[in-house]
Amino acid sequence: MAEPARLRRAPAAVASGVRTRLELGPLLFVTGTLLVILAGTMLVPMLADLAVGHPDWEVFLVSAALTAFIGAALVLANRGARFEALTTRQIFLLTTLVWTTLSAFSAIPLALCGLELSLADAVFEAVSGITTTGSTVITGLDTAPPGILLWRALLQWLGGIGIIVTAVAILPVLSVGGMQLFRSESSDRSEKVLPRSAQIASAIGWLYVSLTLACLLVYWSLGMSMFDAAAHAMTTVATGGYSTHDASIGYFASPEIEWAAVLFMAAGGIPFVLYLQVLRGRAGLLWRDVQVRWYLAVLVGASLLLAAWLVREHGTSPLEALRSAAFTATSIMTGTGYASTDYGQWGTFPIILLFFLKCVGGCTGSTTGGIKIFRFVVLYQVARIQMGRLVQPSGVFRMTFNGRPIAEDTAISVMAFFFLFALSFTLVAGLLAALGLDYITAMSASVTALANVGPGLGPIIGPAGHFGDLPEAAKWVLSLAMLLGRLELFTVLVLLTPLFWRS
Amino acid sequence: MAEPARLRRAPAAVASGVRTRLELGPLLFVTGTLLVILAGTMLVPMLADLAVGHPDWEVFLVSAALTAFIGAALVLANRGARFEALTTRQIFLLTTLVWTTLSAFSAIPLALCGLELSLADAVFEAVSGITTTGSTVITGLDTAPPGILLWRALLQWLGGIGIIVTAVAILPVLSVGGMQLFRSESSDRSEKVLPRSAQIASAIGWLYVSLTLACLLVYWSLGMSMFDAAAHAMTTVATGGYSTHDASIGYFASPEIEWAAVLFMAAGGIPFVLYLQVLRGRAGLLWRDVQVRWYLAVLVGASLLLAAWLVREHGTSPLEALRSAAFTATSIMTGTGYASTDYGQWGTFPIILLFFLKCVGGCTGSTTGGIKIFRFVVLYQVARIQMGRLVQPSGVFRMTFNGRPIAEDTAISVMAFFFLFALSFTLVAGLLAALGLDYITAMSASVTALANVGPGLGPIIGPAGHFGDLPEAAKWVLSLAMLLGRLELFTVLVLLTPLFWRS
Repeated sequence: MAEPARLRRAPAAVASGVRTRLELGPLLFVTGTLLVILAGTMLVPMLADLAVGHPDWEVFLVSAALTAFIGAALVLANRGARFEALTTRQIFLLTTLVWTTLSAFSAIPLALCGLELSLADAVFEAVSGITTTGSTVITGLDTAPPGILLWRALLQWLGGIGIIVTAVAILPVLSVGGMQLFRSESSDRSEKVLPRSAQIASAIGWLYVSLTLACLLVYWSLGMSMFDAAAHAMTTVATGGYSTHDASIGYFASPEIEWAAVLFMAAGGIPFVLYLQVLRGRAGLLWRDVQVRWYLAVLVGASLLLAAWLVREHGTSPLEALRSAAFTATSIMTGTGYASTDYGQWGTFPIILLFFLKCVGGCTGSTTGGIKIFRFVVLYQVARIQMGRLVQPSGVFRMTFNGRPIAEDTAISVMAFFFLFALSFTLVAGLLAALGLDYITAMSASVTALANVGPGLGPIIGPAGHFGDLPEAAKWVLSLAMLLGRLELFTVLVLLTPLFWRS
Repeated sequence: MAEPARLRRAPAAVASGVRTRLELGPLLFVTGTLLVILAGTMLVPMLADLAVGHPDWEVFLVSAALTAFIGAALVLANRGARFEALTTRQIFLLTTLVWTTLSAFSAIPLALCGLELSLADAVFEAVSGITTTGSTVITGLDTAPPGILLWRALLQWLGGIGIIVTAVAILPVLSVGGMQLFRSESSDRSEKVLPRSAQIASAIGWLYVSLTLACLLVYWSLGMSMFDAAAHAMTTVATGGYSTHDASIGYFASPEIEWAAVLFMAAGGIPFVLYLQVLRGRAGLLWRDVQVRWYLAVLVGASLLLAAWLVREHGTSPLEALRSAAFTATSIMTGTGYASTDYGQWGTFPIILLFFLKCVGGCTGSTTGGIKIFRFVVLYQVARIQMGRLVQPSGVFRMTFNGRPIAEDTAISVMAFFFLFALSFTLVAGLLAALGLDYITAMSASVTALANVGPGLGPIIGPAGHFGDLPEAAKWVLSLAMLLGRLELFTVLVLLTPLFWRS
């Protein structure tokens, strides 16, 4: 079951297992650099507010200055840091540090702006943005100033590319929840195409920008204003789900826009490295990928089931049913969270199906959240082998993923992830219930946060509601849950083990 | 990670892996024998109805005659069957065959009796009885004739000893969902005490009878009528939950009876082989057993949490809160399903906690249902190792269960069981929702059936309701789910794989 030796060498460069003092220098340097970049992006909404003469431009200027100052200070104070041999522990800490720090600084403009959000609200909104969850505490989006709308969209857009890079370059090295399966992805497949991961990251970046521009053009040509098109293109490709209208995509009442959104949301759920292969003329790799096949099969299957239900139970016309179903299934499964209609009214069966889709999520290496399709593929392989061994105890069975053998250890990692997801779900739902939330709200808020989807179920946080009315404590719990889910649970939870801090 | 050679030899006597024609002779012989025994027990309720002059005695006589006739025919037709080398496939088929056949014949008196149950109702009630689930479709228990009440209690009592024997003698050999961990239980621990498994089964049988008699005496001395005491003793020790009153244990309005029930239900959730050790003066084995420790810890922890909630949120007096909480937690976790109060009214947090307890269940080798504590112990070990490996990729970590190493393969089996449980839960809940049940009813019916608990949640099937008003199709689905859960999923599902039938 061993992977080829060449592939195994990759993580060896990173982790030595020998316990040394946890050097924070390089971690703070990276965090500082990213803070400076974040400060730079704050100038975009500043310009937008300046253009319409809204006083919030000052908020963005102050926030940018503060963020840039602290970022620069961190960079300067740690410019001598050594990057040659980052340990596994350092990378774990770095990943969580970066995501929490950027979330915190992203909340500053939200806390200071004219919407008068509480600290919990601002942090919730920022975390929901940067994790591409898309749950919102804000109402009255239609009359909100452009700066804050643009900032929310930008946060999701940055979070989207952030998670792709994290999933491609970092999580496989950390072997988080079976991500070691993708260790070879960058070294093997693209070896001759793009030798180094920095180049892959930059290629993915350009691809991400192009896909967003394409989405923008399509939305604009279908009748959105340039501002709406830009904001929605960013939150569509990032499968984030923030809208510039309280009625979400439903505001535009345009079947064409809904179908376009289906297309681009679905595209956001496919591993971006595979797009690079397509660009290199190797489109076959995309269609032969087991993740992509399962993903599209589940998406199409669920859409058809939902459409059939709508036709049968609600008498919707087939074409409209198909559109509503495809839109909702794609929005939920990719974790975008747009709503074109209040699907909370569809009945029990759709709700259970959508709950399931929320947990499943899209492909790893994309912008989607949830458990991820590849873990279900591994589970299916495990179940197949288990059944085979029960019937033929002496038979020889092999688990494979995209033609490669799956090590037993990797299978255990994947299954441990499921367990941890279920445990986190139960704990978060239990905490929310203890804070006074009702059954449906607590359960759906827990899963929507952990899977980075967006809306929940029920009258309060359902597609027709928002998260603003939840108790402050619940918002803090959910902010943590969103980060936990985005970083694939283990990455954060490992920091809570005593073993991690023992040196 | 290999187990000692002596222990590995056990299953080798059973499974050869070589494909031969599936011989049904021995399977039918065993099933026939058990049918004759079942027919014999039908005479007990017959006598009870005769004693009070209720015409249902004829129903039991006819059912007994029919069952005995078919049973005897099967025995006679297959008396030449060879038992020396039962294959794994035969044992799989036998297990499912026995449980479904006995359920079917047990339903005959229910279908024919004066309660005028439909076929679906009778089968549901019989399956719910024999799987010790305890969900009921019958109302008006307080005025029902003694025969049918006694039959329901007897079914649970027989099902209770049936599952203990299945879990001790059969499932470990089949390696179902990690049960291979207990392969050594009979050969190792009790080796010097009781050399052969037939002796163990008989010892457990006597213990079971004694425990039931003790429970009967306690109930009787606390004020129950002899009939109620007998019926409740049987359904308490079997952690079944059928009562002779619509108000369940709440009917007696006796704190002493409730505490007695807590004690005997909890006792029913402990592995019965460990009691044999206690009788041999090795009580230490009971307290050192990791399953028992976790089981009692979860039970006590959950009871205290619930009690605290009742005191804080409902202003219940501490003593009453503790009793209600301990009773409900024990009833739910052991899968008994008695109710002393309508805990559906306690609020969201208790509901989520109880939902979780339902899934957990008690120890394997006891009469309880659910996922079982030992699988959580294995999962905890896996999680511990996973975390350790993330931090120290080159570190050496070992998974242990009661001091013995856990093979990676066993860990995968256990985790596959969780996955299958979740999948079965989703499918059953989805089917029920498609049949028109509401969210809470569908979800709670699914889990209560798979975990063999009894009552669900919500106004329809909650502790204050019953299953009689569900659609017929839902009752069939739930009957299957109860059998599926009782036989630990794999045992039944393996029969659905093409590989099983390929010879």
